[in-house]
Amino acid sequence: MTTLKQHIAKSQVPEPTLRRLPWYLAYVTLLRHQGVQYVSSTAISREINVDASQIAKDLSALQLRGKTRIGYDVDALESSLRSFLGFDRQHNAVMIGVGSLGSALIADRGLDRFGLNIVAGFDVNPAVVGTTLKNVAVFDVQRFEEISKAYGAEIAIIAVPVDHAQASADMAVAAGIKALWNFTPFRIRTADDTVIQNTSIYADLAVMYNRLKGGI
Amino acid sequence: MTTLKQHIAKSQVPEPTLRRLPWYLAYVTLLRHQGVQYVSSTAISREINVDASQIAKDLSALQLRGKTRIGYDVDALESSLRSFLGFDRQHNAVMIGVGSLGSALIADRGLDRFGLNIVAGFDVNPAVVGTTLKNVAVFDVQRFEEISKAYGAEIAIIAVPVDHAQASADMAVAAGIKALWNFTPFRIRTADDTVIQNTSIYADLAVMYNRLKGGI
Repeated sequence: MTTLKQHIAKSQVPEPTLRRLPWYLAYVTLLRHQGVQYVSSTAISREINVDASQIAKDLSALQLRGKTRIGYDVDALESSLRSFLGFDRQHNAVMIGVGSLGSALIADRGLDRFGLNIVAGFDVNPAVVGTTLKNVAVFDVQRFEEISKAYGAEIAIIAVPVDHAQASADMAVAAGIKALWNFTPFRIRTADDTVIQNTSIYADLAVMYNRLKGGI
Repeated sequence: MTTLKQHIAKSQVPEPTLRRLPWYLAYVTLLRHQGVQYVSSTAISREINVDASQIAKDLSALQLRGKTRIGYDVDALESSLRSFLGFDRQHNAVMIGVGSLGSALIADRGLDRFGLNIVAGFDVNPAVVGTTLKNVAVFDVQRFEEISKAYGAEIAIIAVPVDHAQASADMAVAAGIKALWNFTPFRIRTADDTVIQNTSIYADLAVMYNRLKGGI
């Protein structure tokens, strides 16, 4: 039982920690650009607005410890964070839905630098199928399984209209896709071992509008 | 004191509620497309995987009540949700940084349907300044205050490199912008009355990669 627990503790980093680590990464990348060599958790804390003790705790999960009075080595911290977060490895992904949002995400090559390699797109629209967007070819969705397997895709990005979200997810899972990155506001459901990551742009908008209007 | 509390309760909808409402909206939009006229909270619950009692509670915040044995009117529910979430009103926004991500977001006209009206872009790159992207003109960032005021922008979308995130935020706030939609992984800080909404695409990627690798 202890072994199982330890296994989970290792592989399954708590989501709040995972969400703080990219903040630290962004800040140490900035420091490296500025030529800074060492940074203390107190200095990160001041900049990021997270308790220094929380930062030290988060970073110790990466086996990183700062030196007394010197702090963390900026270069080492940056590369450890990038590696821990998986940003330094290529994850092959396919795009389902090459409409407005899907093509925008393909065009945003910034995702490359965070380890996301979009290898192919799929659509039903004959005007889009057969085209190429920033070197990413768009295929008929009928060829999903063949093409996504040929490219070794493990992630499917879902950027279809809401009424096709669940069917797209089902198709992707049936074709062996391991993780779904869902940009639709639809709540996709799958078997338990599929990873579902929702990026809720519209919910973010809703929260922002409400705060703008209401304020406290 | 009670009055103040009530005021806050009305204007400041809890974030978890605000984040569930777009799911209901997506589902009832789907139902309308399918010609469905009434839906019960139990049916929404089955589809969305949220407790029916929670759904009824969330919807009662919108003064919406289902009819016994019939449920909610799909059309009325959809338009109430769109209105409550602010998706049926235009919110003028400017884009700071028309690089890869910024231009992708301008190109994604899907945001229009959620009430976001991007009226202008700003950049420092002479190759981008003076161009037009889907009818959105890109200006030199020097002209930020003049142009954003002329357009009546209330929201600034921040899509600049990490090392310019804070300076962009400061500039926007000084020019009278009320809300910042931050797509960078940098933790922006401002005076208390500015709304900051972070959309943490990279944190979402980090969580997804970790779940893919570790999995439970």
